[in-house]
Amino acid sequence: MTTARDLTIKTLGEGRFDSPLGPGKRDFVSDDRRILLEDEVGIGAAGPGDLSLEKAGPRERIFFDPQSTTVAVVTCGGLSPGLNNVIRSVYYELIHNYGVQRVLGIREGYRGLNPAEGSPPVELDAAFVHDIHNLGGTVLGSSRGGQPAAVMVDFLESEGIDILLCVGGDGTQRGAHGIVQEIEKRGLDKAVIGIPKTIDNDIPYVWMSFGFASAAEAGQQVVKGAHVEALGAPNGVGLVKLMGRNAGFIAAGAAVASQEANFVLVPEVPFPLEGDGGFLDALEKRVVERGHALVIVAEGAGQHLFEETGERDASGNVRYVDIGVFLRDRIKRHFQERDIELNLKYLDPSYVVRSCPANAWDRILSDRMARMAVHAGMAGKTDALIGFHHQSLVHVPIGTAVGRTRQLDLHSDLWQAVLGCTGQPKW
Amino acid sequence: MTTARDLTIKTLGEGRFDSPLGPGKRDFVSDDRRILLEDEVGIGAAGPGDLSLEKAGPRERIFFDPQSTTVAVVTCGGLSPGLNNVIRSVYYELIHNYGVQRVLGIREGYRGLNPAEGSPPVELDAAFVHDIHNLGGTVLGSSRGGQPAAVMVDFLESEGIDILLCVGGDGTQRGAHGIVQEIEKRGLDKAVIGIPKTIDNDIPYVWMSFGFASAAEAGQQVVKGAHVEALGAPNGVGLVKLMGRNAGFIAAGAAVASQEANFVLVPEVPFPLEGDGGFLDALEKRVVERGHALVIVAEGAGQHLFEETGERDASGNVRYVDIGVFLRDRIKRHFQERDIELNLKYLDPSYVVRSCPANAWDRILSDRMARMAVHAGMAGKTDALIGFHHQSLVHVPIGTAVGRTRQLDLHSDLWQAVLGCTGQPKW
Amino acid sequence: MTTARDLTIKTLGEGRFDSPLGPGKRDFVSDDRRILLEDEVGIGAAGPGDLSLEKAGPRERIFFDPQSTTVAVVTCGGLSPGLNNVIRSVYYELIHNYGVQRVLGIREGYRGLNPAEGSPPVELDAAFVHDIHNLGGTVLGSSRGGQPAAVMVDFLESEGIDILLCVGGDGTQRGAHGIVQEIEKRGLDKAVIGIPKTIDNDIPYVWMSFGFASAAEAGQQVVKGAHVEALGAPNGVGLVKLMGRNAGFIAAGAAVASQEANFVLVPEVPFPLEGDGGFLDALEKRVVERGHALVIVAEGAGQHLFEETGERDASGNVRYVDIGVFLRDRIKRHFQERDIELNLKYLDPSYVVRSCPANAWDRILSDRMARMAVHAGMAGKTDALIGFHHQSLVHVPIGTAVGRTRQLDLHSDLWQAVLGCTGQPKW
Amino acid sequence: MTTARDLTIKTLGEGRFDSPLGPGKRDFVSDDRRILLEDEVGIGAAGPGDLSLEKAGPRERIFFDPQSTTVAVVTCGGLSPGLNNVIRSVYYELIHNYGVQRVLGIREGYRGLNPAEGSPPVELDAAFVHDIHNLGGTVLGSSRGGQPAAVMVDFLESEGIDILLCVGGDGTQRGAHGIVQEIEKRGLDKAVIGIPKTIDNDIPYVWMSFGFASAAEAGQQVVKGAHVEALGAPNGVGLVKLMGRNAGFIAAGAAVASQEANFVLVPEVPFPLEGDGGFLDALEKRVVERGHALVIVAEGAGQHLFEETGERDASGNVRYVDIGVFLRDRIKRHFQERDIELNLKYLDPSYVVRSCPANAWDRILSDRMARMAVHAGMAGKTDALIGFHHQSLVHVPIGTAVGRTRQLDLHSDLWQAVLGCTGQPKW
Repeated sequence: MTTARDLTIKTLGEGRFDSPLGPGKRDFVSDDRRILLEDEVGIGAAGPGDLSLEKAGPRERIFFDPQSTTVAVVTCGGLSPGLNNVIRSVYYELIHNYGVQRVLGIREGYRGLNPAEGSPPVELDAAFVHDIHNLGGTVLGSSRGGQPAAVMVDFLESEGIDILLCVGGDGTQRGAHGIVQEIEKRGLDKAVIGIPKTIDNDIPYVWMSFGFASAAEAGQQVVKGAHVEALGAPNGVGLVKLMGRNAGFIAAGAAVASQEANFVLVPEVPFPLEGDGGFLDALEKRVVERGHALVIVAEGAGQHLFEETGERDASGNVRYVDIGVFLRDRIKRHFQERDIELNLKYLDPSYVVRSCPANAWDRILSDRMARMAVHAGMAGKTDALIGFHHQSLVHVPIGTAVGRTRQLDLHSDLWQAVLGCTGQPKW
Repeated sequence: MTTARDLTIKTLGEGRFDSPLGPGKRDFVSDDRRILLEDEVGIGAAGPGDLSLEKAGPRERIFFDPQSTTVAVVTCGGLSPGLNNVIRSVYYELIHNYGVQRVLGIREGYRGLNPAEGSPPVELDAAFVHDIHNLGGTVLGSSRGGQPAAVMVDFLESEGIDILLCVGGDGTQRGAHGIVQEIEKRGLDKAVIGIPKTIDNDIPYVWMSFGFASAAEAGQQVVKGAHVEALGAPNGVGLVKLMGRNAGFIAAGAAVASQEANFVLVPEVPFPLEGDGGFLDALEKRVVERGHALVIVAEGAGQHLFEETGERDASGNVRYVDIGVFLRDRIKRHFQERDIELNLKYLDPSYVVRSCPANAWDRILSDRMARMAVHAGMAGKTDALIGFHHQSLVHVPIGTAVGRTRQLDLHSDLWQAVLGCTGQPKW
Repeated sequence: MTTARDLTIKTLGEGRFDSPLGPGKRDFVSDDRRILLEDEVGIGAAGPGDLSLEKAGPRERIFFDPQSTTVAVVTCGGLSPGLNNVIRSVYYELIHNYGVQRVLGIREGYRGLNPAEGSPPVELDAAFVHDIHNLGGTVLGSSRGGQPAAVMVDFLESEGIDILLCVGGDGTQRGAHGIVQEIEKRGLDKAVIGIPKTIDNDIPYVWMSFGFASAAEAGQQVVKGAHVEALGAPNGVGLVKLMGRNAGFIAAGAAVASQEANFVLVPEVPFPLEGDGGFLDALEKRVVERGHALVIVAEGAGQHLFEETGERDASGNVRYVDIGVFLRDRIKRHFQERDIELNLKYLDPSYVVRSCPANAWDRILSDRMARMAVHAGMAGKTDALIGFHHQSLVHVPIGTAVGRTRQLDLHSDLWQAVLGCTGQPKW
Repeated sequence: MTTARDLTIKTLGEGRFDSPLGPGKRDFVSDDRRILLEDEVGIGAAGPGDLSLEKAGPRERIFFDPQSTTVAVVTCGGLSPGLNNVIRSVYYELIHNYGVQRVLGIREGYRGLNPAEGSPPVELDAAFVHDIHNLGGTVLGSSRGGQPAAVMVDFLESEGIDILLCVGGDGTQRGAHGIVQEIEKRGLDKAVIGIPKTIDNDIPYVWMSFGFASAAEAGQQVVKGAHVEALGAPNGVGLVKLMGRNAGFIAAGAAVASQEANFVLVPEVPFPLEGDGGFLDALEKRVVERGHALVIVAEGAGQHLFEETGERDASGNVRYVDIGVFLRDRIKRHFQERDIELNLKYLDPSYVVRSCPANAWDRILSDRMARMAVHAGMAGKTDALIGFHHQSLVHVPIGTAVGRTRQLDLHSDLWQAVLGCTGQPKW
């Protein structure tokens, strides 16, 4: 699917300046250090092979002169805990450590790179960023959807922006890739670095994105509440809808963390709804036997049960049927038809799981990714996404990472743990 | 509306035993100590008047012999943080301090008092209650709706229950009052004490019920999340539905705590929806001027906008139109018709605000109320609800407290604080 | 102790302007509305009597012209959750609701009113206060100790400050009272309003100060941790020191909230340390019988065990012996001498309980107090402290409130609840 | 240092039974699947080499017959968030999924394996474990120090325990290794599996132990409080001592998460205290220039400044000088000698960071490790520790993992992030 050549990182050219992080201030990482894509060996395993990812980190020689470099950061798409932490760490790494003088915050996502659509950028300073790491959301605002690459590169030129850091998900990174292509067409010395942001944890080469642990934490709180509700009424059923359009990581994480769920429905598993051994049947049995049950459903689960509508939202994603509401009504009907008492409590925390401030782990992760993006940009790398592979931060060619979704590996420990703690059928 | 005679507490008779809490272990409160109903004086004020409420607390002489008394506790209706704390403190006050030998936990609300409907009671012991104060919900289960008083009193007789502690809201206390009347008809020496439970904080003579502070805490977290979402998208509007069928305390509390809301819609204020100065108009102005807005709506708000359906739920409450979903759609239409961009984020945390464990304040309050209920029951008081008036816990005749709803006083500091921090019109 | 005359609030003169809060925006409170000091009746009770406190709230006629009034707010002494909330609500009530144009934040407590000592004030604006309600501490800084009243009034004059809002504890309010006296001596039209800040909850006429509920919450978390530690080792003893120099409210609150403590030592109870029935003896019995124990000690407890040193700290308070460390060592020695295994875990969370952001209740309370202080100042009241009595916010003459400590009433429900849930002797 | 042979896992013999997890319930992992020890390539990198670790997971064939197998779990040493989650998941994986009938909980650590020292084991059942995943600590109790291997194996024999799961740190695993040796000496078919527990995150081959993320979370809360305190007083210095005897992970994690620290002192960096460029000098400069500073010190930092005392604690660890108290006093003296104002706030949260319930991430991790230990034991593996390498759970020979401490790699992203956000010298 990917080849070794795919994993080579583009660069604007040789490092022309000594990094101000040396000597003796930070440890440099040389360009040839790489992390193997595969680390599993044995009969039937892929084996280490030739594929590897360039390690992230500060380079000894950098491409841009800190004194005269302007860097801009833009946050796009839906919110994720850690966005403000990224903005703040980008600022401080540039200003304190590299001695860069001008860091711009782009307002309202890619709209802010189109003067006809959005607000002008804000020049970041200490007063602006000082306390933002304690806030959820993004102080720069965000928006969905793209803008014409030509318009955005015009803007980079007119504002004198040398490095653009694009924080966002798949759509955002596709946008970033387009900007790079336009930059190359014009032969400009401008770097574009992607920082992966996905509450759903579904970007390839990023085994854990910032925000995910916070969302799992918030999600499990809701699940615990639903469990309490299910126990608090005769034949109580808690039904919780959690985020996860294409990947069930949050649902799985909240399930294993809470240990209370009996069923976890995710996009990766096209579960049978009706019939013997189907979801409704299994739920009924559980309720009749134990007097209560708890169901977690990811928003993207069960779409196989519906005809495609073809509708799309502002980000260009297929509009899904609301599986939570559907299941709520369907379960009620099922029990009603069988004349079995049911006290169904439906919880749809929606944005609650993603609008919270980042927890400690996500604060650490977003800080590290932010600083790595700064290092990559200053070193003249471009078209590169900061990835997280095994235990290392790496550079991934944006073009290789986009257009695909990372889903739950059903053989993974995480999903096996879901099976282990729910006892649900391996549909 | 109420007369002095209304506020006299019924008793089963003279105290026949010395309380095991004395001498020198606890401070006794004599029956004649009372708290004035009114404490405000001045031109136009009600003045102290003659009305007062009996102070709660341990009595020096008690009616029941701890050695041979059986006490039962039942939790009814919807959940509220603090229920398990009440159960646990009831148990420990009885066992450790009064030396009572047998405390029963009734399962699944009033159903558990009807052998034909519910599960048999559990005899509480230390292993059962040891860690429950850290859990939300009720370990005894709950249910909505009543059972025939005669059946329940039959059960009290057959189980030898001398004191019944009924933890619940208006419906529950009406049920408790019915039990008392049946007990009196039969001439039995059984005490029934009510402990007020209402997440909506809407029981008269209880200025702050346990669970309310926790719900306000949870509610404000959601409101903060909605604010973050509103800021995170162009013309972002956060719309949060919070609990509050007949009273807007949680909405008001979350609004003042968060300081982020621009509009707080509560049952007490029949706000105009359309037209100049109406809600939609005011919201539109705010969004156009400031680029974002935050709306909190209590579930019982805006019912004046709909025809009554006459439908009722399991607790006998009128079924309401879902004002949150209605406003969500109505706001979208309003902006669409005017061709104004809108990014509406709807958050309906539903049970999230009431299924959490109790916070410190509610833990203190539920402990105090539980112990007061034990004191009242052991002293042979009956048909009494534990109230919270000024800074004191008091006894309120159940018949006087039920059948009415405590609503937000629109002249109160709390509602005035809402007006102060939202700047919303005084509709 | 206090007389009716003591409770009269000073005023700079008749209201000269219509309040911009009317007509129809807020509800006005007239000066003659008062809350009875005593609300308890019955044999041996004080009875309502003549004493009452003036109700706080917006007045219809105000003394200061909003257009030309400068208001300053100063935060002094130790931190308390809610300080930033007070600053922010003061700002918004003045700017949004009264239309005042200039609000100053005094830096570093009273030092900031002495140009020789502190930093110049900051003119508050929306950018400065926007997000501070989510932060613990005070963005204005603070300091302990006073400054000469004459110097501070010089500063008020030179800066054109008309209203000074002093947020602080006993020492701060004594300082405020001194400023009023200097203002009166000079015959100036300047108002000084006190807002009570005390993590220890020990200011008279303020039955619950903002910050206290947050501290009780934080305190109970530590207590729960200590309980976990005590259970986690053979003969484990958790010893937790909590704040409370002269009053044991935090210790008592954390004890009742957690329900885990076996001993709560507070300044109000000069417990016996040694001998039969003394603390060490009782602790030993508990550990031997049950295998673990939990002790909460307020920092001001047990000072009767030591000679007075006469030393004083920067705020002028007597320096206490560290009772936590003393007990830790004394308990160890006691068990060592008796050759009983002991695993003592000492937890001194110190500033942890007061540096956290305010919880929802404290956010509500600090908002209300802040707005009431603004109303009082704008109405030309002076030398008045915002009090909290029964369920109402009131005005208390500062001179009447200062110089005394509010302590735990050992007959109160709270302390009785401590006795109820610890089972400790009523020393 | 380690050789390939070192990484081979011992087994009691061939799998004799089909695993009840199949067919179709869970995915099996075959014994030959391994994770490369090194995944980094490039000039100067170690390269993948031959070393690899056996992958954890359920085996298709198992050694023990679930129907007749007795499993025991023991928790030893200091507390760590997640212990109860391990106990609970071990129980449910065995009972629900493997169909094992008897699971024992050993009381008070290894003492419970010595009848002369500790309490008898408890047979775990659903009532016992049902809610423990929400509690900090360990419901089984714990203790420090070892017991004679012969005595413990006698106990395993007399109680008919086939599989022993030892949850603990280095000392515990050394004990487990000793038990294995005794078992081998006696030629018994008993498996011993280690589950790593270390709040300090310092066990080799375990890049993240459960409890660590929770401790970092709790630690950063304290750090934020200290920052608030430092800002709240003139020349305020917050000094926070956090856990970390031999490794500074918690200090580093809390520093990066909070972003507020100016100095992070860890055991891995023998910083200079005095003189130009030393810690005191750098701190003084920071305070004079910025008016406040924040210092985090790990408990094991700075021991190079003291003579070794040779004393040891109950776990056999060298007793350290209290670096927090030492620095507190030393800093005070330094500023006093230079006549510079100082408001030092010392925070030693001690057990607070480890006695909290596990956060979502740690709940997930402890569940996974617990189930992997069950799989390993049931498959007849022995002398194996559950490790966490790259993104996989693995088996590590206990003998290879013990006796060494995993420390902060000063070239790692985490430590580099500390340098990046503190700006402290690279001593």
